Amino acid sequence: MVKKTSVGIIGAGKIGKLHINNLVTMNEVNIRAISDVYIDQMSDWVNTLDVKYTTKNYMEIVNDPDIDAILVCTPTKLHSEIVIAAAEKKKHIFCEKPISFNLEDSLKVLDAVKKAGVIMQVGFVRRFDRNFRQVHEIVKSGKIGTPHIIHIFSRDPEPAPRKYVRHSGGMPFDMTIHDFDMIRYLTQFEVEEVYAQGSVLIDPFFEECNDVDTAVFTLRFTNGAIGVVDNSRRAEYGYDQRVEVFGSKGSVSIKNDTNHTVEVITKDGTLSDKPKWFYLERYNDAFKEELRSFLNCVTTGTEPTVSAYDGLQAELLAHAATISLQEKRPVKIQEVLKQTDLRLRDH
Amino acid sequence: MVKKTSVGIIGAGKIGKLHINNLVTMNEVNIRAISDVYIDQMSDWVNTLDVKYTTKNYMEIVNDPDIDAILVCTPTKLHSEIVIAAAEKKKHIFCEKPISFNLEDSLKVLDAVKKAGVIMQVGFVRRFDRNFRQVHEIVKSGKIGTPHIIHIFSRDPEPAPRKYVRHSGGMPFDMTIHDFDMIRYLTQFEVEEVYAQGSVLIDPFFEECNDVDTAVFTLRFTNGAIGVVDNSRRAEYGYDQRVEVFGSKGSVSIKNDTNHTVEVITKDGTLSDKPKWFYLERYNDAFKEELRSFLNCVTTGTEPTVSAYDGLQAELLAHAATISLQEKRPVKIQEVLKQTDLRLRDH
Amino acid sequence: MVKKTSVGIIGAGKIGKLHINNLVTMNEVNIRAISDVYIDQMSDWVNTLDVKYTTKNYMEIVNDPDIDAILVCTPTKLHSEIVIAAAEKKKHIFCEKPISFNLEDSLKVLDAVKKAGVIMQVGFVRRFDRNFRQVHEIVKSGKIGTPHIIHIFSRDPEPAPRKYVRHSGGMPFDMTIHDFDMIRYLTQFEVEEVYAQGSVLIDPFFEECNDVDTAVFTLRFTNGAIGVVDNSRRAEYGYDQRVEVFGSKGSVSIKNDTNHTVEVITKDGTLSDKPKWFYLERYNDAFKEELRSFLNCVTTGTEPTVSAYDGLQAELLAHAATISLQEKRPVKIQEVLKQTDLRLRDH
Amino acid sequence: MVKKTSVGIIGAGKIGKLHINNLVTMNEVNIRAISDVYIDQMSDWVNTLDVKYTTKNYMEIVNDPDIDAILVCTPTKLHSEIVIAAAEKKKHIFCEKPISFNLEDSLKVLDAVKKAGVIMQVGFVRRFDRNFRQVHEIVKSGKIGTPHIIHIFSRDPEPAPRKYVRHSGGMPFDMTIHDFDMIRYLTQFEVEEVYAQGSVLIDPFFEECNDVDTAVFTLRFTNGAIGVVDNSRRAEYGYDQRVEVFGSKGSVSIKNDTNHTVEVITKDGTLSDKPKWFYLERYNDAFKEELRSFLNCVTTGTEPTVSAYDGLQAELLAHAATISLQEKRPVKIQEVLKQTDLRLRDH
Repeated sequence: MVKKTSVGIIGAGKIGKLHINNLVTMNEVNIRAISDVYIDQMSDWVNTLDVKYTTKNYMEIVNDPDIDAILVCTPTKLHSEIVIAAAEKKKHIFCEKPISFNLEDSLKVLDAVKKAGVIMQVGFVRRFDRNFRQVHEIVKSGKIGTPHIIHIFSRDPEPAPRKYVRHSGGMPFDMTIHDFDMIRYLTQFEVEEVYAQGSVLIDPFFEECNDVDTAVFTLRFTNGAIGVVDNSRRAEYGYDQRVEVFGSKGSVSIKNDTNHTVEVITKDGTLSDKPKWFYLERYNDAFKEELRSFLNCVTTGTEPTVSAYDGLQAELLAHAATISLQEKRPVKIQEVLKQTDLRLRDH
Repeated sequence: MVKKTSVGIIGAGKIGKLHINNLVTMNEVNIRAISDVYIDQMSDWVNTLDVKYTTKNYMEIVNDPDIDAILVCTPTKLHSEIVIAAAEKKKHIFCEKPISFNLEDSLKVLDAVKKAGVIMQVGFVRRFDRNFRQVHEIVKSGKIGTPHIIHIFSRDPEPAPRKYVRHSGGMPFDMTIHDFDMIRYLTQFEVEEVYAQGSVLIDPFFEECNDVDTAVFTLRFTNGAIGVVDNSRRAEYGYDQRVEVFGSKGSVSIKNDTNHTVEVITKDGTLSDKPKWFYLERYNDAFKEELRSFLNCVTTGTEPTVSAYDGLQAELLAHAATISLQEKRPVKIQEVLKQTDLRLRDH
Repeated sequence: MVKKTSVGIIGAGKIGKLHINNLVTMNEVNIRAISDVYIDQMSDWVNTLDVKYTTKNYMEIVNDPDIDAILVCTPTKLHSEIVIAAAEKKKHIFCEKPISFNLEDSLKVLDAVKKAGVIMQVGFVRRFDRNFRQVHEIVKSGKIGTPHIIHIFSRDPEPAPRKYVRHSGGMPFDMTIHDFDMIRYLTQFEVEEVYAQGSVLIDPFFEECNDVDTAVFTLRFTNGAIGVVDNSRRAEYGYDQRVEVFGSKGSVSIKNDTNHTVEVITKDGTLSDKPKWFYLERYNDAFKEELRSFLNCVTTGTEPTVSAYDGLQAELLAHAATISLQEKRPVKIQEVLKQTDLRLRDH
Repeated sequence: MVKKTSVGIIGAGKIGKLHINNLVTMNEVNIRAISDVYIDQMSDWVNTLDVKYTTKNYMEIVNDPDIDAILVCTPTKLHSEIVIAAAEKKKHIFCEKPISFNLEDSLKVLDAVKKAGVIMQVGFVRRFDRNFRQVHEIVKSGKIGTPHIIHIFSRDPEPAPRKYVRHSGGMPFDMTIHDFDMIRYLTQFEVEEVYAQGSVLIDPFFEECNDVDTAVFTLRFTNGAIGVVDNSRRAEYGYDQRVEVFGSKGSVSIKNDTNHTVEVITKDGTLSDKPKWFYLERYNDAFKEELRSFLNCVTTGTEPTVSAYDGLQAELLAHAATISLQEKRPVKIQEVLKQTDLRLRDH
């Protein structure tokens, strides 16, 4: 019988719980420990799990010699110190996005992971969605030729809670960063320049936070191809997650997933389903696939589908987009990189 | 300059007017004469046309040496005598469906046309619809292999006027005959047996007429393939005209035409257009194409896409279907043919 | 903590294994025992399960006082004796379809279950598919008015293994019975007459078995509505499972599920996915939902979504269809019922 | 009988011929004269028309007292002098887009038309496409709430001939101007700023012309809503013409028109038609509708659907886009307007 991977989870908020509930259904893994500052308030749920121990001190997990891999699901500001500590203890790491709000910190993470020789995967779950993956395969196959223009539509059904929004880092870091990663995943191109056009059209609260709720990001790739990301914090009909890649020989696109395929035709027209409600419904399978893929990399020692380097690249774009929103001008990636550039080339 | 075909139209009711209005837009034709018993009441419309003469006596058109081709658009009961007279005068003939309500009469028409060596086309307009034609081409190409099961959905948006229904010959002759022809056109198979299952679910008036308003016809082809025709006299959402051919290697089907491709997504779902309303909207282009094809056969002396023989075959199926509805049992085509069979083999 | 339902499974072939693997993921159930004549050859798989005991003698399970419910997944010919024995021991029963090949035997099962007052659910899994369920809800809501015509398309991607086909009871019992149940579920109508038109077009082996591989079944409901079932044992493109209900106010239909929503447009046309391959892919979730629903009925003492009575009604239609195939004529349900009719009225 | 509108056409190149061939089929119009510098080479075609006279000197048409309305279909550089001369002679004017390459000239045209009190319509044909019109109606109805983001996809199947490209004014004037007009038509919003991101990815010839072949234009409306135009000079699969308007309550979008609705399902997937080939196929009906609408305005003295003012607004955006492409920065409309602004306010 194959040895099970022993896992510790740091941070049992919304996303941490989601991962834990998925790990429970997987035979190849053993959940050894969970750490959270509010772990005492979760005893009902923890009792249904078969966990060795829980703790408020994440270092207990980092220092546990019987743990192979750690999932880092805390608020972003804690990511880098936890990941660096875990890497030093030779733990493999799955870290939610973004690695940090700060390029220097993220680079330190990359350095630590490289030095330790451990596997690190960043939580860009959409790469594991069967639709996006299929688009990736088709682009790679050459069926549509060289990509010329790529569009990503990514609209939430409703804004995140205000408490979250205040510390989310702004739209480029809490929403668009997923799309920036997707655009790199699908085209395999690197971005040269970002121009952001944003507005507050849904809720004035975002103005208070110096944030936007509606935005379009135009990207220029180094080869002249062009990318567009369309983001809204509220699509009343559900979670709108689509992409189109237009190339020299054709185009590939996806439609939204729906709950059923029923079509009703009456004198009022033809009525079919709307998109699934939100990421729990749409990316339900992708979240499982993401962990399975990570566990497989840990077991086989292979490169993860989303590396720490990918995480940092998406952060670069989020930084550029943030500057563009503030200064209302196109921003070159080179400008954001500045001194960190030289060190990034090592990765 | 190419000589224009000189045409006379006999019968200027709904369908006659439709054809005349289409002929007006075609450069290759000259409308010489129109005959109708009610022609005096149509002077406003006739005056907008550039017609040599009108008449109440169709024999004037039949005997006119300057007419090349005649469109027969009268009530069905007059078709055979007109067509036979026209054939004797060497006129090419376009005749609305069915040729007659009576196999013997239809056979006399075929005999007369053959003897005269003129072209005769029967008005199965759907063969000229771009969608059905494409299905025909795909089946013929072998892309879906050998047809195993074919479904035709053919539902009117509303029943024809009661005055018409009383003398329409019943559903098999006023609706299904189009589908019987289509099924032969698409499969290139011949039918061996018909079973009809019919009901009155929409309007009790059809019961008074000894007719049905809802029916399913199951056909067995000589090679064992199976056909299904679904007919309803009222689909509240419009003219439902679809087909699916399922074969050994795949299936081919069509969707209904709509007025526009707009899709509205709200919290109530995804709303798109319903089918076009009726045959004038759906087969608008096909009616023009039908005449263009006929005129081209007249000019070039080629075989029409819908021959008199095709007309008679569809009538055979309509007769079998009528018997099946009355006697509630499967009916063999052979049983309907009886003595006419030998003569039909000449065609 | 809620008491778990203790379950025994009789028959661990293809479908038994499928159910067991689904039960494993459910917290509300405890798999106590598995019986199968070949259980000795399954030790690898059994060892991964947490099962109290296995046995070759199903009576051990029937007599086990610590078992609440039994899943009967043996070949059909053993169903009735097992179900009757289990009912006498007050076990709740989930039985695969059909209950038996014989109306008398099935009636005995219904009698035994009624007398014992236990819950019995029959394995018509498609009622638990989200698409079909949605159609059921829409028809029930009255949105499309009264159903006039219902079509079911149900085509397998490839024939079942020959070994299975020889004892499957023929197409009406191994395929169409699912569609017969679906048609009753969706319309809530009862059938009066069945006409079957069948052929061997795919594999002559079916002729040897006195069976067909391609068939269309036309049903007449007691209220005059009409049903059509289209069955093929091989659709090269996958598992084709669709339905359309056409009613007085509109129509409702479903499309096939696909693996992804990707659309590729090139000069060759627009290419999208084909249907999922087979029932494991298409009804994966429905199989789980089916068991969850059964377990819920056991726990709460409510009526199952598919009762033994529903099972028997579908069998009646399968018997009528078999006679129709053999005698090539429409067959009344009344004719099949004969003496069993009176006893059936008790259920 | 209603008096026919007497029309003269100036310029009988590709688009002029298209309009003439459409006018021929309309009863409400009389084509009196055609002028073109190459008219002598068109005698074969002219002879099939029923035209009073042809001329190389367009002033003959301008001065003809028996002409009510003039269609201006010459190269763009001649538009303004012809339109101004025609307005002075009180002719109603249909002018192809753009009015001119120069804001001052276009303003002179608006002044002349206003002073003369004649009707002037600009040739933005897409406003007459049934799909776009339906989107316009739905946005206006409030069904999708207030527009937040609008996307226009507008890709040609192949580049225009090189001869044309050299004097087309560049992509913003020969392609995007249609989309700029559409975006104003659909949202009823005015634009504040344009940012253009363009590349040469298809044919280096465009670089020689100081032009681009692939571009994305991001627009900011005065109310904070955002617009995106996606343009390519070559979509190998055909004429890609789509739009999505996303609003506070939902979204509305259109799909491309296709030649047929056929769907073929085989083991290779589901294949359906690609978009129609080019504007002649896609906007065939819209071109007719455009002229019908113009003639109706002439007869009834009502405002045209596309006014000279609309023409000038689209030109403003094309100028801004051109500057943005050259200077690689967002450009405010206010900056382009400068001194012409005051005079524009009169219109």
